[in-house]
Amino acid sequence: MKARVIVTLKLGVLDPQGQAIEGSLRGLGFAGINAVRQGKVFHLDLAATDTTAAEREVKAICDTLLANTVIENYAIEITA
Amino acid sequence: MKARVIVTLKLGVLDPQGQAIEGSLRGLGFAGINAVRQGKVFHLDLAATDTTAAEREVKAICDTLLANTVIENYAIEITA
Repeated sequence: MKARVIVTLKLGVLDPQGQAIEGSLRGLGFAGINAVRQGKVFHLDLAATDTTAAEREVKAICDTLLANTVIENYAIEITA
Repeated sequence: MKARVIVTLKLGVLDPQGQAIEGSLRGLGFAGINAVRQGKVFHLDLAATDTTAAEREVKAICDTLLANTVIENYAIEITA
C-alpha cells in the first residue's frame, strides 16, 4: 500500500519560510496572495496489505519520526 | 480561495532525504517500508474568487518560484 503524509506547522506557530515565499511572490508581481504556509509531504511505500494495519503503522511512524507533534500537525492518506 | 501545491522530485531523481528517512525507520524497527520519498507542500490563501483564475495564478507561481520543473513535478488542488 501507499501512504501520503502531509506535515504542517500548527496554526499560531511562526512560519518564516512561508513568509519569505509570500514576500518573494509579492516582489515577483503576484499581488493576489494573502498568505503562504509551507509544510512537508512524505510518500511511503508500505509492505502492509490492509488499510487498518497500514494506517496504524504510518501513525506510529509520524509520531516517532516524521512530525514534531508539539508544533506540527500531520494528515495521513492511505491509497492502494 | 485556497490552494494546496505538492512539489515532489521526479521519478529517477535521487532523493537522499527520503533515503535517510527510510534508513532511520529501519533502524527504529519499522520493517515494512519499501521506499520513502520526501517533497514539499505549500498552502496558499488567494484573493482570486474563481477557480479558473486561481488555478492559472497558482500554475504561474509554481513555474516561477515553487518548483524546479527540471527535476520536480507539482500538483495543484484548489479548494473554496
